[in-house]
Amino acid sequence: MNEFALIDHYFKALAERAGGPGCDLGIGDDCALVTVPPGQQLAITADTLVAGVHFPRETAPFDIGYKALAVNLSDLASSGARPAWFSLCLTLPQREAAWLDDFCAGLAALMEQVPVRLIGGDTTRGPLSITIQALGWVEKGKALRRDGGRPGDDIYVSGQIGAAGAGLRLVQTPSPWPADDTDGLAPAREAAVQRLNRPAPRNRLGESLVGEASACIDISDGLLADLGHLLDSSGTGATLDLARIPLAELLNTPAGLARLGLNADAARLFALGAGDDYELCFTAPPARRETIAALSARAGVTVTCIGTLTDRPGTLIDTASGQPLPATGYTHF
Amino acid sequence: MNEFALIDHYFKALAERAGGPGCDLGIGDDCALVTVPPGQQLAITADTLVAGVHFPRETAPFDIGYKALAVNLSDLASSGARPAWFSLCLTLPQREAAWLDDFCAGLAALMEQVPVRLIGGDTTRGPLSITIQALGWVEKGKALRRDGGRPGDDIYVSGQIGAAGAGLRLVQTPSPWPADDTDGLAPAREAAVQRLNRPAPRNRLGESLVGEASACIDISDGLLADLGHLLDSSGTGATLDLARIPLAELLNTPAGLARLGLNADAARLFALGAGDDYELCFTAPPARRETIAALSARAGVTVTCIGTLTDRPGTLIDTASGQPLPATGYTHF
Repeated sequence: MNEFALIDHYFKALAERAGGPGCDLGIGDDCALVTVPPGQQLAITADTLVAGVHFPRETAPFDIGYKALAVNLSDLASSGARPAWFSLCLTLPQREAAWLDDFCAGLAALMEQVPVRLIGGDTTRGPLSITIQALGWVEKGKALRRDGGRPGDDIYVSGQIGAAGAGLRLVQTPSPWPADDTDGLAPAREAAVQRLNRPAPRNRLGESLVGEASACIDISDGLLADLGHLLDSSGTGATLDLARIPLAELLNTPAGLARLGLNADAARLFALGAGDDYELCFTAPPARRETIAALSARAGVTVTCIGTLTDRPGTLIDTASGQPLPATGYTHF
Repeated sequence: MNEFALIDHYFKALAERAGGPGCDLGIGDDCALVTVPPGQQLAITADTLVAGVHFPRETAPFDIGYKALAVNLSDLASSGARPAWFSLCLTLPQREAAWLDDFCAGLAALMEQVPVRLIGGDTTRGPLSITIQALGWVEKGKALRRDGGRPGDDIYVSGQIGAAGAGLRLVQTPSPWPADDTDGLAPAREAAVQRLNRPAPRNRLGESLVGEASACIDISDGLLADLGHLLDSSGTGATLDLARIPLAELLNTPAGLARLGLNADAARLFALGAGDDYELCFTAPPARRETIAALSARAGVTVTCIGTLTDRPGTLIDTASGQPLPATGYTHF
């Protein structure tokens, strides 16, 4: 099976799965052709995952496929755009049928949850990495952006924070989890590793926030770092009520803290700097509180108000202590 | 300088260069936002270049940037789409200012020849590779495709064939080119290496072929391989007049053949299987010959008729010998 037969076998099948909107011409020509509905802006994002950098080398191929698509869908979610199409550029050290089957199954699993269509890409030989570019649409002028926050707006975060970071810490810790689960934390551990490997992009919530949220970003590098980007773009500061930040179960229970070797304060700081959660951090005027609660319920994702935007650009203040918080987070260089 | 400062310094500057059409929101948010003009289809392509696979590791960073964009623009050319935007996903082993300066200069040089706007992407750490996704537009229903060829159509190729392949052979040959240029081939050698490192995408020609050509593909894997894709998609066969195939100068002169260690027949076969030329191979009914000649003159690119489509799918026949030609070309696996 050469490169072209490989594309036919694995990726044409994936492209023909029902789900996303149609395309006028898909895999098999020099370009894919699509039509953006009238009145809609096209939202475009692209993210690369490199083996050993964005995921541990021993990550299952199913999870690699799932995560590569999830992180791109998350960018569409934070813009409030409806996912439509994606292209897949896969660089592989060698062709291995079982690996490709599992990788495609991971993509397919997420494509069933968030309908989106594979329209093209490239398959090349080299060190394992995956670049996906995702395309979606949003009503013209309505996209959620980082720069719309205004002083006085509430700051919200979806779901819980720190799960993926705790999952990575567990995956990288040599001491094995006790087989008898004496502290009853096996489900929480499983949830944390699941969040690391199969993040749940918040597309339903993100799309519903169009016209309601004033600014939005997804949490890929860490809550403080990503909130920092939103503050920079919006030209505001913020106060954060650390006690209200919803922490992942492992970071929020004595047994979990013991397992991770952290005390409660360290766990909170750990969560603030941990990336890969792919929750949404967004802002909205206080007058929107009831609407936000209703949208959260409808999307099936908890949403927690954790602070307020201020008119002091460049400052991020802990409400309880009145002290500045550090802007930590992952950076590649 | 961290990842975000790096993006600001190198890529925002590149994005702000005049040239391509505007975008509604560019680098610096989770998604870029663009508006496709009414009545136009969006054409999308993505290609990855991996160091040591798609270009020799010692290739100059200027040329790597140039080529990474050129191969994507070439896909838009073969669809007849007008280039509009591109995203750049760059994976780098380390941050090196001189490398990045030269890489961006290579991108900028081509962006001046073919106006297109950088709208986003991703910068990550890892083994050197570049994935570009390019977007363009074409009047709805008018895109050039691989599947429109009909028996009796003429087969054309733009420019000359085999230059990039000869350039790669020269770059990879340990014996140095004679410093005194006794055989007067230095310009031809330079042209061949230039074609390898800085291919010239045929966007002007491709756009002008909309409504005239019946099918089109660009030559990335080799003339016979890529023509083979066009034949498969169109459900036709072809006869090729090998003597009319326009060969690169190095493959077409006794001195060049001596330098490359090839005889004339071997050189022709070499050219038919050599990739990376990024010329267009297209078809059109014989009634269009004058129009094609006029479009070629207007685009400033020679165009040569090299054969005819036949109603015998799966057959590719050498007109002179009546014998089948092998479908050779580059494949990754």
